[in-house]
Amino acid sequence: MNDQPFLAKPYLLTHSLMPENHETPISFIDTPFVPNKYFYRRNHFAYPALSYSSYWLPIGGFVETPTVFTLKDLLQLPAKTLKVALECSGNKRDFFQPKVFGEQWKRGAISQGQWKGVPLRTLLEKAGLKEGAVDVVVEGYDYGPRTDLDKTYSFMRSLPLEKAMDPDTIIAYEYNQKPIPFKHGYPLRLIVPQWYAVASVKWIKQIQVIDKPFKGPFQTIDYVYYPHKDDDRGAFPVTTMNVNSSIQYPLEYELLNTGMHVIKGIASTGMGTISKVEISTDEGETWRTAEIAANEEFGWTSWSYNWTVHDKGEYTILSRATDSYGRTQPETAFWNRKGYGYNAIDRVKVKVE
Amino acid sequence: MNDQPFLAKPYLLTHSLMPENHETPISFIDTPFVPNKYFYRRNHFAYPALSYSSYWLPIGGFVETPTVFTLKDLLQLPAKTLKVALECSGNKRDFFQPKVFGEQWKRGAISQGQWKGVPLRTLLEKAGLKEGAVDVVVEGYDYGPRTDLDKTYSFMRSLPLEKAMDPDTIIAYEYNQKPIPFKHGYPLRLIVPQWYAVASVKWIKQIQVIDKPFKGPFQTIDYVYYPHKDDDRGAFPVTTMNVNSSIQYPLEYELLNTGMHVIKGIASTGMGTISKVEISTDEGETWRTAEIAANEEFGWTSWSYNWTVHDKGEYTILSRATDSYGRTQPETAFWNRKGYGYNAIDRVKVKVE
Repeated sequence: MNDQPFLAKPYLLTHSLMPENHETPISFIDTPFVPNKYFYRRNHFAYPALSYSSYWLPIGGFVETPTVFTLKDLLQLPAKTLKVALECSGNKRDFFQPKVFGEQWKRGAISQGQWKGVPLRTLLEKAGLKEGAVDVVVEGYDYGPRTDLDKTYSFMRSLPLEKAMDPDTIIAYEYNQKPIPFKHGYPLRLIVPQWYAVASVKWIKQIQVIDKPFKGPFQTIDYVYYPHKDDDRGAFPVTTMNVNSSIQYPLEYELLNTGMHVIKGIASTGMGTISKVEISTDEGETWRTAEIAANEEFGWTSWSYNWTVHDKGEYTILSRATDSYGRTQPETAFWNRKGYGYNAIDRVKVKVE
Repeated sequence: MNDQPFLAKPYLLTHSLMPENHETPISFIDTPFVPNKYFYRRNHFAYPALSYSSYWLPIGGFVETPTVFTLKDLLQLPAKTLKVALECSGNKRDFFQPKVFGEQWKRGAISQGQWKGVPLRTLLEKAGLKEGAVDVVVEGYDYGPRTDLDKTYSFMRSLPLEKAMDPDTIIAYEYNQKPIPFKHGYPLRLIVPQWYAVASVKWIKQIQVIDKPFKGPFQTIDYVYYPHKDDDRGAFPVTTMNVNSSIQYPLEYELLNTGMHVIKGIASTGMGTISKVEISTDEGETWRTAEIAANEEFGWTSWSYNWTVHDKGEYTILSRATDSYGRTQPETAFWNRKGYGYNAIDRVKVKVE
């Protein structure tokens, strides 16, 4: 293989162009900091038109002192840098059975890197929360029509006060040591570690504190788990990421030689850290522990397992992660009508010949 | 939608990097000449190292006068330019049930454009075929290991004399008015219209005429239809493209508004031309004729159908092409162990809300 003059590079996997949605080629990512060009793109609307020259961030509503921060103000406040994995709650939607409608994400609606910014808490404390504040609503500059409602909506999401005041919930202005790329929220993006990425609002326009639960369509229609196909019984909101793992190598339905193969992948959770990843190559009859890299607080954990296979034939490789709260991936994902939070044990079939 | 400062572009869909395999984002291709950057890439091996400065094309074996052509020789011979669709015989392999091993191509292992070159026939006539010539073997510069055999092989394929002498089988040196891009066979690529693209050997190294059927592994192990999972009964070679069609819009599991939608796609065949494309939006109970663009001899035929939908609900859109030989897409594709020639009626499910 020493005769390869042209390097092969992976590409984002395109799901739609309006709005722009592509997933990360996750099988081919081997860096802990996903470069901008490979970061998955998930949009609800067209990209917003911003005037950066006059950018400011207003915080208002149920606060003592409605305040407007300039970018310069923010840059002067104490910052923190966190390695955070953002996972779309629709990640792996393609795998649900029965199938559900919406973007057919495979394993790549997840990316991670270094986010730097100011804790949202710092700004809320400067504005002064009023007694009785309930939700903190963050509005993005992106807006547009919905297929199910006859109006134009901004992308708006709320956090309950407790999560908004978590010192690791930040208003980020840098990704991997550079200003946040435009398509990922420049100049300011909310980063909510441990929650599905819908909470991490891009292109922040304003922040409003309110004294009752927020009811916008991206809070109460979308990003809600509906356990039933035809009615809304038992619905509950999408928040914390489920424990999950994905096999990066081998690829699905790959043909392999006999011999040694390094099965590898990533694992992540919204609660605690990954405590173990187990691999089965016999449809789950026996499980062996994979080696896991250093525990990650908010990023994904890389893992690998050396598999020596002598016998030709078909194999199903399974990966199953468990987190420090004892949550483990189920055999079958919790089916829900809009297809969120898929986290069944990952499976890749291969043939050794 | 007038506020979009950043255009969204589709990407190739990556299947593997060694060898490099990506498919065309076919849903987003609306030009009849697929640009190089969106042409699907299908390799068996690493890219070859060629010394272009000393490139020549030998034709030998069962001929009167073994001959070596330089690129300059070829450029001086009468050329023809053909619009040809190349379709990988593994296109749509991902859709087989039961699943088969190998690259999991969806609808995009097909691309087309203008190929310019010299008929292979011209060169064979110059060298002079001997009486009793049977196959014309074309070898590419690409080579490497196979998972199933313990040796290194060049990529070699043969054509029966009749197809080799077809005046439309050309040794191409241009794609879309430019030298063939390196990843697609520069400087010379065999172009075999109407046959699956495996016949269109890239980076031609030499041509050998032989007096018996060629037995290389890409002729007699791969690119053979094996109808049975566990034995080779009834095996026959992959040659002419099946009649086929693909829906480009809407996308699978897309959510749509009520109103008018232009269902659109492409259709192709290896025999004659596309004579009709029919669309069903009720699971095949009723069919309506799509509008088809001008008949294409070797390229694909674009088609469209204006669909007005008043009622919310789930719909399955089907497309079914028929060619001028009366071949029509089947409801279920002919299953074969290596997953070639998938051409079942195309299906896309959508939800109107």
